[in-house]
Amino acid sequence: MAGIADVAARAGVSKATASRALTGTGYVSDATRSRVREAAEELGYVPSTSAVSLATGRTKNVGVVMPYLNRWFFAEVLEGIQESLLAKGLDLTLYDARPGTVGRRRIFDDFLARKRFDGLIAVGLEPEDHELEQLTRIGRPIVSVVGTGESTSVVAIDDDHAARRATEHLIGLGHTRIAFIGGAGPHWAFVDRQRLDGYRSAMTAAGLAAEIRHVAADVSLPGGYAAASDLLGDAQARPTAIVGVCDEVAVGAIIAARRQGIQVPGTLSVVGIDDHEYAEMFSLTTLRQVPREQGAAAVATLLAEIDDPERPRTFLHTRARLIVRTSTAVPDR
Amino acid sequence: MAGIADVAARAGVSKATASRALTGTGYVSDATRSRVREAAEELGYVPSTSAVSLATGRTKNVGVVMPYLNRWFFAEVLEGIQESLLAKGLDLTLYDARPGTVGRRRIFDDFLARKRFDGLIAVGLEPEDHELEQLTRIGRPIVSVVGTGESTSVVAIDDDHAARRATEHLIGLGHTRIAFIGGAGPHWAFVDRQRLDGYRSAMTAAGLAAEIRHVAADVSLPGGYAAASDLLGDAQARPTAIVGVCDEVAVGAIIAARRQGIQVPGTLSVVGIDDHEYAEMFSLTTLRQVPREQGAAAVATLLAEIDDPERPRTFLHTRARLIVRTSTAVPDR
Repeated sequence: MAGIADVAARAGVSKATASRALTGTGYVSDATRSRVREAAEELGYVPSTSAVSLATGRTKNVGVVMPYLNRWFFAEVLEGIQESLLAKGLDLTLYDARPGTVGRRRIFDDFLARKRFDGLIAVGLEPEDHELEQLTRIGRPIVSVVGTGESTSVVAIDDDHAARRATEHLIGLGHTRIAFIGGAGPHWAFVDRQRLDGYRSAMTAAGLAAEIRHVAADVSLPGGYAAASDLLGDAQARPTAIVGVCDEVAVGAIIAARRQGIQVPGTLSVVGIDDHEYAEMFSLTTLRQVPREQGAAAVATLLAEIDDPERPRTFLHTRARLIVRTSTAVPDR
Repeated sequence: MAGIADVAARAGVSKATASRALTGTGYVSDATRSRVREAAEELGYVPSTSAVSLATGRTKNVGVVMPYLNRWFFAEVLEGIQESLLAKGLDLTLYDARPGTVGRRRIFDDFLARKRFDGLIAVGLEPEDHELEQLTRIGRPIVSVVGTGESTSVVAIDDDHAARRATEHLIGLGHTRIAFIGGAGPHWAFVDRQRLDGYRSAMTAAGLAAEIRHVAADVSLPGGYAAASDLLGDAQARPTAIVGVCDEVAVGAIIAARRQGIQVPGTLSVVGIDDHEYAEMFSLTTLRQVPREQGAAAVATLLAEIDDPERPRTFLHTRARLIVRTSTAVPDR
């Protein structure tokens, strides 16, 4: 590919002049600038970003830190982020920071400190104290998708509300024996705790505090399947309805019920949170969020903060919408 | 954070000397070098990578191009890549190139041409002709995970073999009416075609050419569910066994069968390819591949080619191993 020397030669100027014309730093006459730009275009010259970066102080790159890649929510957020960055001509550097790994420590100790980005999007992170401190010390804008937002702008759904709404839907149908499945693993996410709180408030508000029943489960389809298999095994103690911490857990519960010959929704109602790509297939009633849009919103917020570092932090909380399908019905008498 | 000026001041040298001492370019006495390094360490100085990159010609960054993020295979490969790069202290820039999007065109036209990486890993790409040409013109080492490998090193499983082995397993149990579900969408991947070929060869070799039956389906769990629902609806024409192009499709077929009251494996045997995280839960017989290891192998190959650009291209094909669970059995008489 053509280098800056080729462009300079074609435009009949020095390398230094060609460089100034292309990076927009230092004085160059308009005539020279357009001659150089034409030459660059004709030769298909693409400037080295290292040089551009030194000249402008911008890396044209955004860092994304996430704990998981192979979960629906995270993959969708990432696609939303990528799509928006692409439209702005920005690169995306990915930091996969699974909790408790050596890799995660290295990301926080070494990688992020290199500052190869103009800003950072942290998705679903629950940074331990020293990690949070490190992020803040970097001195680059940070936007959190999900999370507590102690020190950053946040884009998220109102998780407490989503679980409350899911539970109220079941209560409205006449259910009283409603269990909540999910969360409480070794890395129990902030979002899971919020949703459990929402379930608890709805139960308490309906005078069903004595019926509150939280079944711990890995936040995944097999996790929901395993927990529901145990829960449904005892016909006496069986609830008439289940709130899954997310759709993957709810779908796992439906599969477990079907395997035991328990009719959904005839004998058991199940509601999730997400509107996952599997929700339609399992006729799952759920609270709909659109993680792809959260990714896009995070990029918009971050770019605004990069342009104006003094911009106040923002909290964008959207409310998930109830989608009623046929996995929920009035309880069996 | 500390800058190069702070380090220079603390070490009592000029900025230029401090920079030479830290990047390893140009002459600096050993005594000065260690004084500068100590100062940098005390101040927690991390060099700007733009400067390092200009000095060394290396970006310490690897680009990854993939068409999908929210599929098990791709997410697992990406985690394998990330883990290996992390161990080597290298960054990962992600290019999400979904087929047929404007974004994909921009990635190939603009982003990759910037060469902000020392090498590229292309996962499951089927680049159109002009894209392939563009990749080659970049002049950086490229390793493909999956793919034809016309012009790059390749890390993959032998897909033809995996489907042949899956089909032979069913034939060995006594099945003759065996259908193959999956593939043939608008972006029908190379890997799907290879697997269909493997199924066809096994059927033909067993004298079952007349029984060959390919059911097109979206390569996903809902895709397998929809295709199997149609296929199993007609009891007369129903096969006794199904080969799913991948586990997601095979699991979709099992769910469809259960919904119609068809026993697996009593009335229908189902085999997949992958050993997906759901395989255990559905007792799915499958051909096991480990995409995480393919990601790691791709990084090892790429780094070797970055170190020695004259290194010959390599083709690393591994064979998937049959895992027999209880979704397959002798056919019902």
